[in-house]
Amino acid sequence: MTAMTTAENPRDLIQSLERGFAVLLAFDAERPSPTLAELATATGLSRPAVRRILLTLQHLGYVHGDGGRWRLTPRVLSIGQHYSASHGMIEIAQPHLLELAEKTGESASLAALDGTEVVYIARVPVRRIMSINVSIGTRVPAHATSMGRVLLAWADESTVDTVLEAGLQARTPETVTDPAEFRAALKTVRDQGFSIVAGELEEGLISAAAPVRDRSGTVVAALASSTSTGRSTVDELHDDVVPLLRRAADAISTDYGHRRASKASSIIVKPHDGFF
Amino acid sequence: MTAMTTAENPRDLIQSLERGFAVLLAFDAERPSPTLAELATATGLSRPAVRRILLTLQHLGYVHGDGGRWRLTPRVLSIGQHYSASHGMIEIAQPHLLELAEKTGESASLAALDGTEVVYIARVPVRRIMSINVSIGTRVPAHATSMGRVLLAWADESTVDTVLEAGLQARTPETVTDPAEFRAALKTVRDQGFSIVAGELEEGLISAAAPVRDRSGTVVAALASSTSTGRSTVDELHDDVVPLLRRAADAISTDYGHRRASKASSIIVKPHDGFF
Repeated sequence: MTAMTTAENPRDLIQSLERGFAVLLAFDAERPSPTLAELATATGLSRPAVRRILLTLQHLGYVHGDGGRWRLTPRVLSIGQHYSASHGMIEIAQPHLLELAEKTGESASLAALDGTEVVYIARVPVRRIMSINVSIGTRVPAHATSMGRVLLAWADESTVDTVLEAGLQARTPETVTDPAEFRAALKTVRDQGFSIVAGELEEGLISAAAPVRDRSGTVVAALASSTSTGRSTVDELHDDVVPLLRRAADAISTDYGHRRASKASSIIVKPHDGFF
Repeated sequence: MTAMTTAENPRDLIQSLERGFAVLLAFDAERPSPTLAELATATGLSRPAVRRILLTLQHLGYVHGDGGRWRLTPRVLSIGQHYSASHGMIEIAQPHLLELAEKTGESASLAALDGTEVVYIARVPVRRIMSINVSIGTRVPAHATSMGRVLLAWADESTVDTVLEAGLQARTPETVTDPAEFRAALKTVRDQGFSIVAGELEEGLISAAAPVRDRSGTVVAALASSTSTGRSTVDELHDDVVPLLRRAADAISTDYGHRRASKASSIIVKPHDGFF
């Protein structure tokens, strides 16, 4: 990492850009169509500041104001598209996710690590099994999910430390909250090459995950298949789903490596040009 | 619309916010991990300006710099989540999309209009039938798709004019490019209550769409089922899929209206509080 990328001199940060995102993110399920005053309260910014931000965001097509209320436009979704488009693996993974969902009859997901959480980066939903509505961009605590266990099992020690320092919050009575027990669970995942987590994020939710690697062998994503205790058991997941899951994860890794390898003839690929 | 929301006084716009989005959107399939210099060239901004924007975006967690190259992080996907979370219909539509995909064996999509394009706002993919990889946030020309035809059929006259003024670009030899013919097609959609478009966006792609309405009756989204000529015909789509599609679209409208109606007891709902 260069000196430049780690620099966080407050003078280098653009306050109006930070404030712009703060206003954009202030729209949510509780505030779907806020007024300027509500946005000022939510962000702690002055009304004139919020007004100029809204006019700029409207000019860019991200918000639309009508009758004193503001709403996000679907153009906001296009921002995320730039993440997907710039991460070739997501497109490569799509047919494998479809095939896995078809073979198992269960939802298939691809996720990446972001801090102490995993973010769904691709998904083929088959039915809703979680209390939250999972879609692309949804975030869940890494420590309580099979996808997070896989991503942490092969992560830098400092990444695991960050998760442990944040605390292993109990989401259910089943959640592993003891740091030593958690580290042992990560070792098991490394040894067996996959993770199964049952009822640690939500009661009744069981999922299995396997690592997806880039050309250099670095684990850059986790592929998961999720079901509920009413439909399946941990043993069934282990015997029937895990083999399919691992084959699919390996196929994505291979396709990703192949594509990158074929690209290498025309562009320069750095040895450790990771997923992020 | 208030005077404030239509004001586009350049003095009200925050240049650094516009520039920040320009840098964020400069990451794409062709430039997945650009250098600072490449971003400066792509955006037309100076290197010092791009540098400060990158440091701010890194501080916010949206980009990550390593070895002189920059990449978007999965946190970028979370921005789109705020659109989904603030548009309750997307969550309401999800089980209906799943059921439609299950019953038809074909991909089901929900889309909204943004200018002259439609944006996929929810989707259950069953298989890949388009040459592009369709995911949430993907944009396609409204005029050449069944979803766009539905959204334009019930849109303001000015919205249709904007599309016609932009020009009905031929995507295939089948694309309707004559304005009078296009207006007649929209009238047919209004009369019959759905749209079927075959081979106008891509050869071999056929899709049907039906309107989804908010409580006031305004068409705010289009529900579509898509297939390919190798798997189905326009007649089969008409006879077998359209009835299921219309029932699903009506069910989403009803659920959305009911939820909004039940909410109306606790919050004030404006008569024309549209989807956007």
